Amino acid sequence: MSIGSANTECLKRIQESTAVLTDIRIALDVIPGMTEKTVLHAGPPIQWDRMCGPMRGAISAACVFEGWAKTPDEGFELGASGDLTFDSCHNHGSVGPMSGIITPSMAVHVIRNDVHGIETYANLYEGIGKVLRHGANDAEVLARLRWMHEELAPVLTAAIRRAGGIDIKSLVAEAVQMGDEMHNRNRACNSRFVLALAPHMAAGGKGDLEKIISFLDNSGHFCLNSVMPACKAMLDAGHGIEDSTIVTAMARNGTEFGIRVSGLNDAWFTAPAPFVDGVFFPGYGPDDANPDLGDSAITETAGLGSLAMAGAPAVVQYVGGTAQFAVETTHKMYEITATEHETYRIPNLNFRGTPLGIDIRKVVETGITPVINTGIAHRKPGIGQIGAGLTAAPMECFVKALEAFAEKKGV
Amino acid sequence: MSIGSANTECLKRIQESTAVLTDIRIALDVIPGMTEKTVLHAGPPIQWDRMCGPMRGAISAACVFEGWAKTPDEGFELGASGDLTFDSCHNHGSVGPMSGIITPSMAVHVIRNDVHGIETYANLYEGIGKVLRHGANDAEVLARLRWMHEELAPVLTAAIRRAGGIDIKSLVAEAVQMGDEMHNRNRACNSRFVLALAPHMAAGGKGDLEKIISFLDNSGHFCLNSVMPACKAMLDAGHGIEDSTIVTAMARNGTEFGIRVSGLNDAWFTAPAPFVDGVFFPGYGPDDANPDLGDSAITETAGLGSLAMAGAPAVVQYVGGTAQFAVETTHKMYEITATEHETYRIPNLNFRGTPLGIDIRKVVETGITPVINTGIAHRKPGIGQIGAGLTAAPMECFVKALEAFAEKKGV
Repeated sequence: MSIGSANTECLKRIQESTAVLTDIRIALDVIPGMTEKTVLHAGPPIQWDRMCGPMRGAISAACVFEGWAKTPDEGFELGASGDLTFDSCHNHGSVGPMSGIITPSMAVHVIRNDVHGIETYANLYEGIGKVLRHGANDAEVLARLRWMHEELAPVLTAAIRRAGGIDIKSLVAEAVQMGDEMHNRNRACNSRFVLALAPHMAAGGKGDLEKIISFLDNSGHFCLNSVMPACKAMLDAGHGIEDSTIVTAMARNGTEFGIRVSGLNDAWFTAPAPFVDGVFFPGYGPDDANPDLGDSAITETAGLGSLAMAGAPAVVQYVGGTAQFAVETTHKMYEITATEHETYRIPNLNFRGTPLGIDIRKVVETGITPVINTGIAHRKPGIGQIGAGLTAAPMECFVKALEAFAEKKGV
Repeated sequence: MSIGSANTECLKRIQESTAVLTDIRIALDVIPGMTEKTVLHAGPPIQWDRMCGPMRGAISAACVFEGWAKTPDEGFELGASGDLTFDSCHNHGSVGPMSGIITPSMAVHVIRNDVHGIETYANLYEGIGKVLRHGANDAEVLARLRWMHEELAPVLTAAIRRAGGIDIKSLVAEAVQMGDEMHNRNRACNSRFVLALAPHMAAGGKGDLEKIISFLDNSGHFCLNSVMPACKAMLDAGHGIEDSTIVTAMARNGTEFGIRVSGLNDAWFTAPAPFVDGVFFPGYGPDDANPDLGDSAITETAGLGSLAMAGAPAVVQYVGGTAQFAVETTHKMYEITATEHETYRIPNLNFRGTPLGIDIRKVVETGITPVINTGIAHRKPGIGQIGAGLTAAPMECFVKALEAFAEKKGV
């Protein structure tokens, strides 16, 4: 097959995909390859000795949550001991924002792409600030996690099932008409997500719905942990097409930035994780920042995030830049993508589809790398989120991938 | 005072105003001048013999709702009998979308502008299609109205009070960042409105919340009946400034289009209501359409609706036109307005404030009249909404007002 035909097939499969939140389950029960001592993390695979601070901090808290350790300090010891099995979320059908830590007892969103028989998973969104995914690990973080698992998850699960699932792809399509880019601005999608569930939560009549609805609504990002696995469920349909040069995953573990390419199996092409040019919360600055972290760049890979930024000019108030910059960013991304999204359409570009299908050839030829809108974690464990901003995928990843592709083709 | 200083004062008062939904009450108990036989209607004052079909249809249904008539046919007879007192909503601190019928037993939103001690009112939003405000009057319409008064209003009222009021001005500011123009596109504002109330409804624990939340959310416009009186509460703060040429109300009764001007007391300057260039629901066309109707042009008067259309390109899918047309419309409206809104800012115009303060002098000088985004009612009573579209305020209103202003100034 020619590269062109392979890419067409890859993108056809992505475009025709669906993504429905069907359930919330316990990780050990549903994630393939999950064991009682597995710790999944964001980005390409990495072991403890090379992990960044916030990822270690998150693991220390997860160890307490699992009952493997009594304190975060014991959690750090366990992390370093070699007794845990670390692996990349992406190797297990999963994604996680920031440190992306998923351990066996955690509740996970279950997303189905029924067109291609794909199921994906992500943990629950904890809110903003001092949260496990950003490396915070104190009693407040753990108490919130426990509340989420004991009180929130059962109510959510019942509502999702009663609703017959929540069509995440449709919610995203509507939210792109309402100024969301679906990485750092999810206000519309989250509002519609909560309102899709609220009548079913009310009908269920269980739980402290005042607290639950407020929690789901307040941060404005709860839906992100459904949108990320939805992106993966659709992109994975286009993964593994021999001869395709389309990027099917971009992910960061806080040490390295890695990409996967449809025609290059499950190899990761990595480079050092870049720093983020950000807007910092009061009291923090660039010296406090960890390099780029998390699986959330799956949104950009799926034609959202910075690629959809022209339709979400208000996101610049959070990540920096001007409205004009937002439009220019999307226009630049059309230069490195193979097609336009048929479902996600940007009103102020007269309903043009978002750029979709990052082609490693175009990235290397143009010298333009994908822009990423992202949160910023403190580089030390135990602190949490300190800002948000913009970065770009390192060119080195795309050059390495293109070299591997050329080698495979015997060019 | 010079006209310039008067307009500055008028606009300062409008800009500094607040608008909070504080309560839902029965019209007879709160609307000034409301009597047991008063029927308030949209637009400038009009009597039965000159009323359009949908306004008569709405009154026929309201007569049944009030118990004044057993059937809509009896309602028509009563309307024609001279036994009812008809007056303009605007003459009683009120506004109503489309026919704008408010009768003594109807529940009304209470909006407070505490900066200027102003209170305004509007009836409850019934949903779309076959509804009283568009002139429908059958058993389904009346059953829905009764449900709204008996089951919805008590739950809403308790939630509004428990929330300590809902800040409508802030909700609108956020919604303008989310692609709403607040006349025909209210999806974001309505979502945020329902989510502001949902936790309090849940805490109240009363009513069929599954049905209530679904009803409030589904049409996407329930909040409009809070936004309209909020616009009036803020505009009225700028009304009555001697020597000001700023328009403080635009309203249509389906027969005439009328405007009020800050420095010209409560006089209405009218012209025949124009037809609407619209997108019709299946089965209907221009021949079925009533001329422009309703108090909802108060949104345009307050810097929203078509004036904010650049930030709401998705509204063209409902009212017609292109995204480019939406941007051009807002740019054209800057030519006839005195200032820019300090609170309502359009992201894709780099957060420029919406055009605010239609100046009758600029309208006459430029020949540009305010564009109106609006719904379309069937011209016959008993049918309801048949589409939505765009029209423009008639130049004659502005010419008459400017002549009256010149005469008053002795020019």
